[in-house]
Amino acid sequence: MASGSVPMTPPLHDELDIVIPTIRNLDFLEMWRPFFQHYHLIIVQDGDPTKTIKVPEGFDYELYNRNDINRILGPKASCISFKDSACRCFGYMVSKKKYIYTIDDDCFVAKNPSGKDINALEQHIKNLLCPSTPFFFNTLYDPYCEGADFVRGYPFSLREGVPTAVSHGLWLNIPDYDAPTQLVKPRERNTRYVDAVLTVPKGTLFPMCGMNLAFDRELIGPAMYFGLMGDGQPIGRYDDMWAGWCVKVICDHLGLGVKTGLPYIWHSKASNPFVNLKKEYKGIFWQEEIIPFFQSVALSKECTTVQKCYIALSEQVREKLGKVDPYFTKLADAMVTWIDAWDELNSSGAAAALPNGTANGK
Amino acid sequence: MASGSVPMTPPLHDELDIVIPTIRNLDFLEMWRPFFQHYHLIIVQDGDPTKTIKVPEGFDYELYNRNDINRILGPKASCISFKDSACRCFGYMVSKKKYIYTIDDDCFVAKNPSGKDINALEQHIKNLLCPSTPFFFNTLYDPYCEGADFVRGYPFSLREGVPTAVSHGLWLNIPDYDAPTQLVKPRERNTRYVDAVLTVPKGTLFPMCGMNLAFDRELIGPAMYFGLMGDGQPIGRYDDMWAGWCVKVICDHLGLGVKTGLPYIWHSKASNPFVNLKKEYKGIFWQEEIIPFFQSVALSKECTTVQKCYIALSEQVREKLGKVDPYFTKLADAMVTWIDAWDELNSSGAAAALPNGTANGK
Repeated sequence: MASGSVPMTPPLHDELDIVIPTIRNLDFLEMWRPFFQHYHLIIVQDGDPTKTIKVPEGFDYELYNRNDINRILGPKASCISFKDSACRCFGYMVSKKKYIYTIDDDCFVAKNPSGKDINALEQHIKNLLCPSTPFFFNTLYDPYCEGADFVRGYPFSLREGVPTAVSHGLWLNIPDYDAPTQLVKPRERNTRYVDAVLTVPKGTLFPMCGMNLAFDRELIGPAMYFGLMGDGQPIGRYDDMWAGWCVKVICDHLGLGVKTGLPYIWHSKASNPFVNLKKEYKGIFWQEEIIPFFQSVALSKECTTVQKCYIALSEQVREKLGKVDPYFTKLADAMVTWIDAWDELNSSGAAAALPNGTANGK
Repeated sequence: MASGSVPMTPPLHDELDIVIPTIRNLDFLEMWRPFFQHYHLIIVQDGDPTKTIKVPEGFDYELYNRNDINRILGPKASCISFKDSACRCFGYMVSKKKYIYTIDDDCFVAKNPSGKDINALEQHIKNLLCPSTPFFFNTLYDPYCEGADFVRGYPFSLREGVPTAVSHGLWLNIPDYDAPTQLVKPRERNTRYVDAVLTVPKGTLFPMCGMNLAFDRELIGPAMYFGLMGDGQPIGRYDDMWAGWCVKVICDHLGLGVKTGLPYIWHSKASNPFVNLKKEYKGIFWQEEIIPFFQSVALSKECTTVQKCYIALSEQVREKLGKVDPYFTKLADAMVTWIDAWDELNSSGAAAALPNGTANGK
């Protein structure tokens, strides 16, 4: 374990919110009770706001439905997706904590190869509290893990690492495949437990999945926008991908780290591949232009904050991707609206002024 | 397993040579017999050429000592290190096979977590025969492995991958640490079996260790030069690192892939950290200038072969690193000599003309 490592993982009960987007009763929380009970939950109810979402007893939570989102954001609510789990990013915006963990409601506690329940949140906290190493690859993976270090040939000047902004966790059982792969390989299950955490190198993009994801809100929060998906939009299932590409280029620009690997959760059920194909098919085409766009995005020296980076990115999205489809012009607008709304809710004093959703069912 | 994968691993007995640098009897081969017996070995004897190296019965090998190297290369033998395992690259040059596997003589067969002996060579062959994915990171690691694939959000146009030039394997037990880390953590052992193979992304450098390494000689052979180390040189233990940095920038330029991860070997014994510190200390300083150099190297469009890339690189080494220390001017000369020697031995008809070392002890 290299210096800078964290031998004990503090639970950060007062510094981390768990954000859950859902359309159903949160029975899945029962299994997470030993690990989540002492955290505050932010539940973002998607779909019909008249439906009641039941939360198991004993959890501390606030719940926002579409009416709450509309009331709190007013016209700016247009940047928050409806009928799509992309709505979860509203929860990032209203949180007042330093860290966010977000998880899907079809994800359960996984077991490690010894059969022990995996405390996913604890591993995410470890990942976020240890530095990242984006400038050079370490062949023994995370050098800050117990029993590991930087190998021979790793430049000493780079061993301090950089602050970690994102911890991307993985999934056992149902892998996060696109619709074509789901259709071709309906029986594939992920059974491979890869005991590693690694930094996604600077300059490399990755597909960020929102199913099991933690991040430092203070470092990267304003870039964690999940875009316009679902109801009224021509695309779905690219919400987390979009956020991941934006986040990665901004982290690279600001010298922040993105980790992927441990922890695993147990992903219980594959979503319908036919429905998914309908949501994804435009994305499958567009992505071929989006990726080269993000690979060549340049942010100027003036972009010194996440907000400035994000606004600069929105301008390039408008200019370069607007030609691909009018959708991207709308998305560029929404990116600006998102930053406006973020800053409004997160300016000093905003905490007191923020009208709450349903706190603890009260 | 994505398309392009290799369900069965052909043994490639006629297409792969095993290169072993050594100063002692090769008793370690007994443990490798089930896996190595049907391959041809190229043994590069380091140090005193009058010493006899015993090879266990039943192995097919040729052995070259310093006298052989001097006789075969003439004045060009100056590019081959003496009293340093960097001499192994002579074996790459005299091989006539498509693939090379090189292993240190203190490396034994490791066991996987189920307690089964790991056939390291078979895994390397798998790695070399499957494509690499250097342009985008796949969060489930090698998409061509059994039970894995490209995840949602991975651009479809990049799923064909690129040819793999290098397979870098890892080490259980004694990790490949530099002298300072050895001194600080004398008791550290690597016990973490990470069940993954991954492509080192384009634009990212990594510390390539020569202990357990395979490569495609036809694709990248001329760049696998282990530099000037050991006797008469101001530095040691940077031979494989140097090769790795050169190889990586050339692979990136030519669109070839470099993989790291599985297979593991069992590294039995740590080398003396005091001796290592003496060999390494100049490298520890120089490396701080070498890495930015390699990170910013640009190869022109005219560099269409490995040889052309390597000569262009040698010119930049001379120009940029020559200022750091006169050693690098000498190294740039040696890089050119190496390519001359490589081309001489590997031109059409060279195979027949090549004077052999000691073939099978005859």
